Amino acid sequence: VLYKGTENWEEVVGRIRGLHTDTLRKLAGKCEDRFMAGQKDHLRFGTDSWSDFRLTTGKPCCEAGDAVYYTASYAKDPLVNYAIKICRSKVKETQQQFFHSLAVRQSLALHFNIQQDCGHFLADVPARLLPWEEEEDNGGEQDKEQEEAEGEVEKKKTKEPSEKTATTTTKEEEEGLLVAGQPAHVGGAGTLRSRVVVITREVPFQTVADFVREGAARHARNPDLYERQVCLLLLQLCWGLEHMKPYHVTHCDLRLENLLLVHCQPGNPWNLELLEPNNNANAAAAAANAGTCPARLIISNFSQAKQKSTLVDPGVLKDQSRLAPEIITATQYRKCDEFQTGILIYEMLHQPNPFEETPELKEREYTCADLPPLPARSLYSQGLQQLASLLLNANPSERIRMADARACLQCLLWGPREDLFQALSSAPGPAQRDATLQNWLDLKRTLMMIKFAERSLDSGSGVSLEDWLCCQYLAFSSPETLARVVRILQQPPTQL
Amino acid sequence: VLYKGTENWEEVVGRIRGLHTDTLRKLAGKCEDRFMAGQKDHLRFGTDSWSDFRLTTGKPCCEAGDAVYYTASYAKDPLVNYAIKICRSKVKETQQQFFHSLAVRQSLALHFNIQQDCGHFLADVPARLLPWEEEEDNGGEQDKEQEEAEGEVEKKKTKEPSEKTATTTTKEEEEGLLVAGQPAHVGGAGTLRSRVVVITREVPFQTVADFVREGAARHARNPDLYERQVCLLLLQLCWGLEHMKPYHVTHCDLRLENLLLVHCQPGNPWNLELLEPNNNANAAAAAANAGTCPARLIISNFSQAKQKSTLVDPGVLKDQSRLAPEIITATQYRKCDEFQTGILIYEMLHQPNPFEETPELKEREYTCADLPPLPARSLYSQGLQQLASLLLNANPSERIRMADARACLQCLLWGPREDLFQALSSAPGPAQRDATLQNWLDLKRTLMMIKFAERSLDSGSGVSLEDWLCCQYLAFSSPETLARVVRILQQPPTQL
Repeated sequence: VLYKGTENWEEVVGRIRGLHTDTLRKLAGKCEDRFMAGQKDHLRFGTDSWSDFRLTTGKPCCEAGDAVYYTASYAKDPLVNYAIKICRSKVKETQQQFFHSLAVRQSLALHFNIQQDCGHFLADVPARLLPWEEEEDNGGEQDKEQEEAEGEVEKKKTKEPSEKTATTTTKEEEEGLLVAGQPAHVGGAGTLRSRVVVITREVPFQTVADFVREGAARHARNPDLYERQVCLLLLQLCWGLEHMKPYHVTHCDLRLENLLLVHCQPGNPWNLELLEPNNNANAAAAAANAGTCPARLIISNFSQAKQKSTLVDPGVLKDQSRLAPEIITATQYRKCDEFQTGILIYEMLHQPNPFEETPELKEREYTCADLPPLPARSLYSQGLQQLASLLLNANPSERIRMADARACLQCLLWGPREDLFQALSSAPGPAQRDATLQNWLDLKRTLMMIKFAERSLDSGSGVSLEDWLCCQYLAFSSPETLARVVRILQQPPTQL
Repeated sequence: VLYKGTENWEEVVGRIRGLHTDTLRKLAGKCEDRFMAGQKDHLRFGTDSWSDFRLTTGKPCCEAGDAVYYTASYAKDPLVNYAIKICRSKVKETQQQFFHSLAVRQSLALHFNIQQDCGHFLADVPARLLPWEEEEDNGGEQDKEQEEAEGEVEKKKTKEPSEKTATTTTKEEEEGLLVAGQPAHVGGAGTLRSRVVVITREVPFQTVADFVREGAARHARNPDLYERQVCLLLLQLCWGLEHMKPYHVTHCDLRLENLLLVHCQPGNPWNLELLEPNNNANAAAAAANAGTCPARLIISNFSQAKQKSTLVDPGVLKDQSRLAPEIITATQYRKCDEFQTGILIYEMLHQPNPFEETPELKEREYTCADLPPLPARSLYSQGLQQLASLLLNANPSERIRMADARACLQCLLWGPREDLFQALSSAPGPAQRDATLQNWLDLKRTLMMIKFAERSLDSGSGVSLEDWLCCQYLAFSSPETLARVVRILQQPPTQL
């Protein structure tokens, strides 16, 4: 059947196009299965598992906005690494916020770029694992007393909810959260504090804030690479945020320190072999394959998240029906993540948040012309400037939607580029324009297919995260979606 | 540069075609590197290595026409398996033949389907490893005496050539060729016989003779699968024989028992993990990936091989200049392997050698109509019948060339098939015919590329031997080569 009509060239070309598209969609699905292999198993650890976790080192692997992460292994599955997230607890609301964020997160379906929770509970944590509290304690005696008083209050309170605190015996004190090969008394394991603890599978190695800080010199030295990496991280952020839209969830606290980075090994996400120094050949091959994507980005800290309930009380609905839209919370926050993503573009490119620099900006009806320009340092700067302006539009209904922002980033990363834009603008009509875009897509899909084919014979780790992200783009684009993005990116600034 | 001219559809299609062709050629090369990974390292074991080899089992892994093979490991590299080939030595000429075959084989460049020698020497072999000799010994006392007398003569003679016999001390007797974990005295290790021993990297598990014998029931049960496997083995045979043509080497003793089969794991050819019973999931995935190709075929036993010297003595050349071509040995044997390949087709399809059945056939000027028909059991039977007739042509100059036989097998395996032949015969002219074949090739190349792309995300062993063989075909075919093969396969029998 496949070879029927082989005489007709146009039919053959159409069939090759169809095969490429179908295969890329299939491959994108297979990539998802592979990259999310561990995450799709439903794991749930309770208080009773607490004593089976061992820290692999005594130092945090990542210090995020709302929590500190430690790498740990689970006694019943010692080859897999987990992260133990210990929530910071300066403010009294921690727990309440935590249970709020938990409820929001649990309403969302699994996503590659949203933190997944494999269990959470109140646990007694050795004070040595809470170094920031000690620092704070040393900072002021008054604070310390207050903190301790709060701790007491907290501890009493926390016994009340259905979530049971892991009770600590001396035995557990020695076993629970012992650093492998280190005696229990090191670091004053004797002092315990009750904290909200979350177990996650993805072990973050830094936050985007760390990445940006460490990247300052790299940004100057190799702006094309650094800004491309920024685009890849922003793209993942947009994917995660776009995923939340159908659930009517808005994060509302998108900051560099709430975005985590996780090393990404497809297929065997916990295979440390590639990271070991005595496996240099493999590591080099893996690094070459990994492309420019620095890591998997994970959105964390949903404590400020807003969710528009889908089950609205009819009485409330009637009351709201006469209110201006900007007054209703859920509507108010609808385009909040888009705005914050715009600020993140500035911050990731080592520029200050324009609204922190010029607070009066928000007081007046600013236009994109009032926003500080991003320095043109790379191939990507101009496009990121355009995207930031579209995201920071003062008028939420004119502000670009998350899905369009994501499509803009895809276009900045993988094209079409300037040269094709010019060919498009000189195209006599929309049919010719669509044909050009279809040809571009055919060529890109062929190249993508070749890349996958060559990966099958690579000795490295195979398909990289960047391959997957690019495959998603090419598999689900059409001349129409491409034309839309090109139009958005070409909008003259005066129209913004 | 790549995206210049994206407006022009024909240009884009042409570029996609070029990309596919170039990539398939690159992939075919990468496959070769991978499948021949071990073989390309130049290994040479001498007599001094003999005591470092240990048999992994006491039973032969393969009993071939000219030798018996044992699996062995080498003390200095114990994870890699080698085969120890112990030449059968009933006839006095063994050694002379062996050194002849060695000279012929060493004149050939490495090839995937030709046995490679990693070292050879005269060695004292425990009699228990020569079970056939014991059988023969028990058969007649007279033979035994003669054999022993011969052995004595041999042993004296063999000290003479530059090749030194591995001298045996009692210590070596215990160490050399010890079966792992088995005391040296088991099986009468005390008796030693001097034999020609060859070390090869490829461990055969059976000969094609065994495959054919064991395949009789399978041939009846699943003729399409069995006959496809026969095509894949014949294709490898043709590749090996075609490789010998530029070296003017003719094997002249192509028999089922001189063709060895070796398990083929690309990349890690000695990784036994996949074969272990406790690794069923991997083994199943590997089997699914491996396609229908039963094994790698290796041409062995060059004892009857003829080589036309490229440096011909001018005097000899002058003498030969007045002789009829069929009298000159090298010319006489030029198409001998083609003829024997034709006989092998009959034998592999469980039919007797036509010339053994009807010896008088050769006495008269037979035509293909005189050859017994092959039963039409599968998709491949008719094509194999045609190919056998072409190979068994009584007139060597009309007999099909090895390269064309190879191309016929490729066409039988991967198309084009009957349906396209019909479309071609109704094509108005050669331009339309070439266009149809080019379209067919474009489609097949796309499918091959997709297969490789999907392999990159398979959890099995990746690219199979059949993938490589098919990739070679599609990468190096053109409408012209395809048209030639279609013409050959469509020749009416009367023209043969």
